[in-house]
Amino acid sequence: MEMPFTGPEFKAIAAAARDDLRALLGIPSHYALLFTQGGASAQFSLVPMNLLRVKRRADYVETGYWSRKAMVEARRYCEVRVAASGAASGFSGVPPPEAWTVSPDSAYCHITSNETADGLEYHWTPETGAVPLVADMTSDFLSRPIDVARYGVIYAGAQKNVGPAGLTIVIVRNDLIGAALPGTPSVFEYKVQADQGSMANTPTTWSVYVAGLVFRWLRQRGGLAEMARVNARKAARLYAAIEESRGFYRCRIAPADRSRTIVCFTLREPGLTPAFLAAARERGLVNLEGHPAVGGLRAALFNAMPEAGAEALARFMDDFAQAHG
Amino acid sequence: MEMPFTGPEFKAIAAAARDDLRALLGIPSHYALLFTQGGASAQFSLVPMNLLRVKRRADYVETGYWSRKAMVEARRYCEVRVAASGAASGFSGVPPPEAWTVSPDSAYCHITSNETADGLEYHWTPETGAVPLVADMTSDFLSRPIDVARYGVIYAGAQKNVGPAGLTIVIVRNDLIGAALPGTPSVFEYKVQADQGSMANTPTTWSVYVAGLVFRWLRQRGGLAEMARVNARKAARLYAAIEESRGFYRCRIAPADRSRTIVCFTLREPGLTPAFLAAARERGLVNLEGHPAVGGLRAALFNAMPEAGAEALARFMDDFAQAHG
Repeated sequence: MEMPFTGPEFKAIAAAARDDLRALLGIPSHYALLFTQGGASAQFSLVPMNLLRVKRRADYVETGYWSRKAMVEARRYCEVRVAASGAASGFSGVPPPEAWTVSPDSAYCHITSNETADGLEYHWTPETGAVPLVADMTSDFLSRPIDVARYGVIYAGAQKNVGPAGLTIVIVRNDLIGAALPGTPSVFEYKVQADQGSMANTPTTWSVYVAGLVFRWLRQRGGLAEMARVNARKAARLYAAIEESRGFYRCRIAPADRSRTIVCFTLREPGLTPAFLAAARERGLVNLEGHPAVGGLRAALFNAMPEAGAEALARFMDDFAQAHG
Repeated sequence: MEMPFTGPEFKAIAAAARDDLRALLGIPSHYALLFTQGGASAQFSLVPMNLLRVKRRADYVETGYWSRKAMVEARRYCEVRVAASGAASGFSGVPPPEAWTVSPDSAYCHITSNETADGLEYHWTPETGAVPLVADMTSDFLSRPIDVARYGVIYAGAQKNVGPAGLTIVIVRNDLIGAALPGTPSVFEYKVQADQGSMANTPTTWSVYVAGLVFRWLRQRGGLAEMARVNARKAARLYAAIEESRGFYRCRIAPADRSRTIVCFTLREPGLTPAFLAAARERGLVNLEGHPAVGGLRAALFNAMPEAGAEALARFMDDFAQAHG
């Protein structure tokens, strides 16, 4: 934490972290990998600021709480087209490909690959033709393999599967770099940080160090294909507990679009929610409250959660349903 | 590092850190204290973006490398007036008060309270009348008491005297909040973060935790008055080593303006610099390289450096001068 970021020790730490992340995700060489700051919420502004110099319109796909936040912020910079929306289905799923209309006049098309407040996730990669696909992957980044070459920009806050909050990862195709609006803060310009190896200003050195350890750990555990298998098993166990509860637990997301990263559910009797949380806490099962804006319950299955954790929660859910069903 | 920032545990950590920092600095109640992100370099853009809605001009005082960086960035947002410059003295000191002309048409007057690349520091507080004084205090924040009420905005990156890089502290007088230019990223708007207790988006939770420990440690050690006494003794010891070296070591900063936070010096024989660094390293004295843009040597005397560290460096300097003088 006290190392100067300009010294050889930290440069080696940052280079190893970059190399391991590139290997984990298979990032092609024509993509820049930036370690920046401010979180995904800062990218809600910085994506339009960095990409809109030529085309002043952007497409967004509305799937829940976080994609709406991104859209509200983008409207401060450009005309926002809704390429597709989950509204027709009450936001119970990802709009299917045939419902999308992406405008060739748009600078990019933005998706939220996993909605952590709502509990839905893309299990397929949208095809947006010549319009670059931009994805906020904060909550499912590194939970599974992705084909980076299908995207124009991928961004993710670190605090889910990467490391301490603050570090923000941006992966951007080289030809999209250099289109920032005037007035984009220099340290947040993709070109400035790409040209200077993410060291145009002091990076979040400690977070980069921890992230590097996590990347190494993921490689040692078998990489993202193995994490995807583990995460699928964890999620399947919890969704099974919901399905087999005879309606005691409810998940309003269509099965095909349910998140493997975050399982959102409610109780048939919402009045039992405080008792559920209290009883769970007694078994050491914590942080099960739903997103404050949405309510209900949710179980985060980020990479750091072992299968035994998901199993313990599922058993508790079975027991609680039996006791109160 | 895994705590949700919305939970009661982290909220208590953040509240204690805020309370301790307010007590340490004596921050008046009509000032907001923000824990934000991006470093001081981000504030080079975000200060003008947050303060320029009414007046589109700002005064800057040019004293060295970092104030120039702030000026270059500010020119992207407004007309920058030079209220005073160290150019006349070859940047060997802080321009004296009688050399300043602050324009009443300026939204603010910006200073860099300590120039870490050059080694000079304000040992007095400028009087700018009705024009709010804005200070980048990154490198001497918490090194000494300050009268916050003399400032409109104080900002500081955490990585010197506060905690892990990433966390950025902004102290802003309430009446200056709410004047952001259109297009300021929402999570970096002072008003947005002030209204939401710096939790409009995920804060740098680990850095806030460590910062809180540091604030507590500083209070237990006697607060900023005691730190100022210790830092003055550390600096005096090193400047004495320079002065008593009969020109072997040189410091080009006027004695009255020399930094107590960072001692910048050169060798009469610059060719000896690599030998100096190598011999210092053998005694465990490291990170003495000057800023890459400036060269030479520098000794950082941040709060974490004990007096014994300054004493060890001074003795080494004496020995090296004797051996090579």
